[in-house]
Amino acid sequence: MKKPLVGIVMGSDSDLPVMRGAADILDEFGIPWEVLISSAHRAPEKTSDYARRAAERGLAVIIAGAGGAAHLAGVIAGHTPLPVIGVPIASGALNGVDALYATVQMPPGIPVATVALNGAKNAGILAAQIVSAGQPEVRDKVIAYKEKMARQVEEKSTRLQELGIEGYLNAKGGSKA
Amino acid sequence: MKKPLVGIVMGSDSDLPVMRGAADILDEFGIPWEVLISSAHRAPEKTSDYARRAAERGLAVIIAGAGGAAHLAGVIAGHTPLPVIGVPIASGALNGVDALYATVQMPPGIPVATVALNGAKNAGILAAQIVSAGQPEVRDKVIAYKEKMARQVEEKSTRLQELGIEGYLNAKGGSKA
Amino acid sequence: MKKPLVGIVMGSDSDLPVMRGAADILDEFGIPWEVLISSAHRAPEKTSDYARRAAERGLAVIIAGAGGAAHLAGVIAGHTPLPVIGVPIASGALNGVDALYATVQMPPGIPVATVALNGAKNAGILAAQIVSAGQPEVRDKVIAYKEKMARQVEEKSTRLQELGIEGYLNAKGGSKA
Amino acid sequence: MKKPLVGIVMGSDSDLPVMRGAADILDEFGIPWEVLISSAHRAPEKTSDYARRAAERGLAVIIAGAGGAAHLAGVIAGHTPLPVIGVPIASGALNGVDALYATVQMPPGIPVATVALNGAKNAGILAAQIVSAGQPEVRDKVIAYKEKMARQVEEKSTRLQELGIEGYLNAKGGSKA
Amino acid sequence: MKKPLVGIVMGSDSDLPVMRGAADILDEFGIPWEVLISSAHRAPEKTSDYARRAAERGLAVIIAGAGGAAHLAGVIAGHTPLPVIGVPIASGALNGVDALYATVQMPPGIPVATVALNGAKNAGILAAQIVSAGQPEVRDKVIAYKEKMARQVEEKSTRLQELGIEGYLNAKGGSKA
Amino acid sequence: MKKPLVGIVMGSDSDLPVMRGAADILDEFGIPWEVLISSAHRAPEKTSDYARRAAERGLAVIIAGAGGAAHLAGVIAGHTPLPVIGVPIASGALNGVDALYATVQMPPGIPVATVALNGAKNAGILAAQIVSAGQPEVRDKVIAYKEKMARQVEEKSTRLQELGIEGYLNAKGGSKA
Amino acid sequence: MKKPLVGIVMGSDSDLPVMRGAADILDEFGIPWEVLISSAHRAPEKTSDYARRAAERGLAVIIAGAGGAAHLAGVIAGHTPLPVIGVPIASGALNGVDALYATVQMPPGIPVATVALNGAKNAGILAAQIVSAGQPEVRDKVIAYKEKMARQVEEKSTRLQELGIEGYLNAKGGSKA
Amino acid sequence: MKKPLVGIVMGSDSDLPVMRGAADILDEFGIPWEVLISSAHRAPEKTSDYARRAAERGLAVIIAGAGGAAHLAGVIAGHTPLPVIGVPIASGALNGVDALYATVQMPPGIPVATVALNGAKNAGILAAQIVSAGQPEVRDKVIAYKEKMARQVEEKSTRLQELGIEGYLNAKGGSKA
Repeated sequence: MKKPLVGIVMGSDSDLPVMRGAADILDEFGIPWEVLISSAHRAPEKTSDYARRAAERGLAVIIAGAGGAAHLAGVIAGHTPLPVIGVPIASGALNGVDALYATVQMPPGIPVATVALNGAKNAGILAAQIVSAGQPEVRDKVIAYKEKMARQVEEKSTRLQELGIEGYLNAKGGSKA
Repeated sequence: MKKPLVGIVMGSDSDLPVMRGAADILDEFGIPWEVLISSAHRAPEKTSDYARRAAERGLAVIIAGAGGAAHLAGVIAGHTPLPVIGVPIASGALNGVDALYATVQMPPGIPVATVALNGAKNAGILAAQIVSAGQPEVRDKVIAYKEKMARQVEEKSTRLQELGIEGYLNAKGGSKA
Repeated sequence: MKKPLVGIVMGSDSDLPVMRGAADILDEFGIPWEVLISSAHRAPEKTSDYARRAAERGLAVIIAGAGGAAHLAGVIAGHTPLPVIGVPIASGALNGVDALYATVQMPPGIPVATVALNGAKNAGILAAQIVSAGQPEVRDKVIAYKEKMARQVEEKSTRLQELGIEGYLNAKGGSKA
Repeated sequence: MKKPLVGIVMGSDSDLPVMRGAADILDEFGIPWEVLISSAHRAPEKTSDYARRAAERGLAVIIAGAGGAAHLAGVIAGHTPLPVIGVPIASGALNGVDALYATVQMPPGIPVATVALNGAKNAGILAAQIVSAGQPEVRDKVIAYKEKMARQVEEKSTRLQELGIEGYLNAKGGSKA
Repeated sequence: MKKPLVGIVMGSDSDLPVMRGAADILDEFGIPWEVLISSAHRAPEKTSDYARRAAERGLAVIIAGAGGAAHLAGVIAGHTPLPVIGVPIASGALNGVDALYATVQMPPGIPVATVALNGAKNAGILAAQIVSAGQPEVRDKVIAYKEKMARQVEEKSTRLQELGIEGYLNAKGGSKA
Repeated sequence: MKKPLVGIVMGSDSDLPVMRGAADILDEFGIPWEVLISSAHRAPEKTSDYARRAAERGLAVIIAGAGGAAHLAGVIAGHTPLPVIGVPIASGALNGVDALYATVQMPPGIPVATVALNGAKNAGILAAQIVSAGQPEVRDKVIAYKEKMARQVEEKSTRLQELGIEGYLNAKGGSKA
Repeated sequence: MKKPLVGIVMGSDSDLPVMRGAADILDEFGIPWEVLISSAHRAPEKTSDYARRAAERGLAVIIAGAGGAAHLAGVIAGHTPLPVIGVPIASGALNGVDALYATVQMPPGIPVATVALNGAKNAGILAAQIVSAGQPEVRDKVIAYKEKMARQVEEKSTRLQELGIEGYLNAKGGSKA
Repeated sequence: MKKPLVGIVMGSDSDLPVMRGAADILDEFGIPWEVLISSAHRAPEKTSDYARRAAERGLAVIIAGAGGAAHLAGVIAGHTPLPVIGVPIASGALNGVDALYATVQMPPGIPVATVALNGAKNAGILAAQIVSAGQPEVRDKVIAYKEKMARQVEEKSTRLQELGIEGYLNAKGGSKA
């Protein structure tokens, strides 16, 4: 097994169904990753130890996902020179506005590269883009991935024009709206 | 000088004009305090060291004020069994909504006793109320403080009825509205 | 039965499923509590009587939970020198933003120690931390509780690394996302 | 002097420049009023005493203005069968969203007739409309007031068409935008 | 049948399940009402005709409920000297924040007495309080209603203390949280 | 088949159940339309090509619907002199507030005519109103459509007065509230 | 003087400094306009009369600007088959969020083409785009306008590259940040 | 002069005082950059051309700053495989909430690494962290930068303890609060 380049950290195992999106896309790009559960509040030593040792262990990027008062990405960023990607997770009564603000509004000096609420897949793609700075073959995969997306949009659009709205929605299993 | 019972921590010296409100009211209640600048992100070791040693050093409460992605109170709360009071500070484009959410929306297990935006004075009063659990003479001061507030409201109201609205505003230096 | 140290008040019996979280954790810490339903608006005399007599009856902390225009904690705080913990409850169309603001944004002089939306468990832990100011054995329980949380995070993380994401989610009953 | 029909209460004398708007318009309608400063938190007994005695003292409506966790109108409404008009006042970091929610989101059973942020003038007009239920001559004044407003709009519009935009703004003292 | 004193207007028949709350409580107070569907946008003439004729037809108050860009209450208030109560209705993607702002933020001169989101019951109580200005027997009913609410809170609280949290929730049909 | 006058574009086929509302109403007005899926981000060339060629292809209006960081309408507006109608679509954790702001807050020089969240039907009506500038018979259809709406409101209101609230709700299939 | 094609309506003369932006750009496009002050609430008859007669008077578009509970555009749209452009104006404590929601969240059947907060200039451009549906020479002006904007961006960018950041800001009169 | 590794793009020259923060910190890290003004709406061809050619021209990262409906970073990200950092800029009536949502809420497939509102300095640091993936000497500079920040916090804290709150604020030029 290859040495991981990306560490995926989450504050609770309830974040796992969202955060697996990062792992899945990294697999698609062929970038090795590792995953752990830690918490800036419930397991502060584990969190800071992991962050402090990440660079020397050979990681290139850390992806951190948390909900509520989402301090995880920021606390990790305080302990490592690596770029840290934050995934605010929508949960609880405020449905993620709290997590978004707590992740993105970092003070000068310690950035967190924040993606959309529940945007773990995009966190994985961003990690691949960062890794590609030193690995040209990863950039080629990113380019191929973007071309595939454009083709998929084209195919869906063509299909919609062929089937019409009614036909397309029926083929998809009917309208949800 | 008496050993401090309350630690007042802030993320930046720009928070000092707000946070001094806590120190002032603690002086009024005769409760010794100490103050320091630390940062969950820029000085993470200093922050966790301070929090970890707070109980053994004899502190009873920690008050932590920060703006933006205000992680300071939560990170301190992760490292100490003491009650931690969080003061969200209004700053930047979101004017404190970010700090409020990042302070109050703590996950189960690690509370932060959050007061109003810029509510450093109330943080000091709350600290006094907590200290009063073990010191009955502090509770008497809290009671006296509340009675004084009620009297002040009464006096202002009486004065308003005597002077009328126009007279009262003129005496105060005129209407601002 | 031991004399209660913590009073748990709620504005409506619809808040009970949330507020029981405070009672459960206080049981875990061995701190005696009492519970009542009152309302700052529908039962204002009951509310102020309870608050006024709380200190002399030997309570050390009051926890108050309410939704909507959540005035309960603030009104109680106006009538007692004890520390008051407010639990904003998410309900209705605004889903708790109203309750959060109405609980936390108290004016200078009358703090309410606000916890997260629906954060009754954290209210109980905060009450225990406050009680521990005069009872060292409670602080030991708080410390033990925090250690247990850190261990649980560690165990889940280890398990995740052993089972992998797919295996872990399957063992938990499958992904919800 | 005539016995007051409307009580104007505010939580702090800093609300007076806004709240005088209610008194001014009541004078215009010839409806006698009284004014006092009280506070649901700092002077809770004064507040509940005032509210409890308002109906027997002959008041028909109470107007209550407060900012932040604006509990004043709701607490008064809990203690009186009279209609209570709430004026949320914009102040502090949240600039009145807190006061608006804390005033309007009352639980079933205890309404507060809420007007716009800083809408003290409209509170006065609404009080006049309520008083007019029993006093037909007040309704005539309300009708006359509305006709005057329509005329004023008409006059300004005519003037704008005569002077043109540039001329109108110059006559007003120039554009502020 | 008695001549209606309160007109209940709503923008769409989808608002009826909420707005019936106003009719139900008016029945409880013995105040006659009428109901209609109109729309400030889809039936503007019907709306302005109704509002213009309301006073002469003997109505004392109009309650208007609408969602989204909730203009109904404000438009009616523009056409009548009667007090108008606005019920913002939670619907659509913004879940009522739009309706709340569009109802309450009226310009100087034209108040709308706004109640909570979906607060039709409170609109009915407020209408009764307004009607009571000219009908002392209605005020007695309001007083009795408030006393009943206080008793109900007391009974629930007593029951909770007898049954305990677990027992109370079981008796209610179990915890929902 | 007639040459399309309105282009309906959406960022994803998941928007189709909402966006079909535009097509349906255009059919009702007899205005020919075309539909395609494109994306400002995943298919940027397709999007700009479509927008650049729209005017010369004879389109009079483009309707663009997207959710999240809804750039589609704005990007199209940058590439065409035609009026562009934006439909912000409610999706994801922020439930459309993001899409609304990203659609409506266009910089000076490049307007997007924004309708309500999920307001595809209104987008279609607005497109018809724009088309009617050059086609008087379309305006007649708009006028007829508005008259039909007013009649429908009238009929529902009459029916409500005949059946009463209970009867009306039962006839509709019962209350949902 | 040419007959006006665009009506510019505003709820108050305090909106004029913003709304003149629409008139200025229409002048630039050579499209004749008229301006008036009206109010959905203070001058409801004037408003509905104007809207009802607009089409027969030869107007092609109405631009309506208002702040707070901004009902003006929606009320006008209820009375005319013409396309109505709404300009939400930022004013008061909520700084325009209220006006934006009250303008854009129109119910099905009655669209308002909403532009950005204070976006009067864009309202004018959108009006020109709508007028251009029947007047090809207006479309040419829109195309020319867009080309001019692109050139201006290009010129500024070139200048920035020549002067450098410091030089550019000095030439502009210094940095404001 | 060295070939630029980072492109700094902004939507308007009014963003320059904020965006220069990115250039300044890149200078501090010794990373060559270039700057340009472009606009996703006013200069769409220039924007897409720049983005499409960025990778082949040797750039490693693009930083894009914009306010309002901030589409710039997302549109650039659609045209390049490079990592794109978005700086939402606070401007206009919504003061940046619009720009934040429009920047961060990107759809799956096209991430934008979003930093805090006006967080251009952090965008520069994040760019340096990304560049450091392929250049170990840059990582050393990042580590040194973080150590310097921690020392500065330490020095300020020491100074505060020496001077006391009053003395510290006086030395800074007095309290601003």
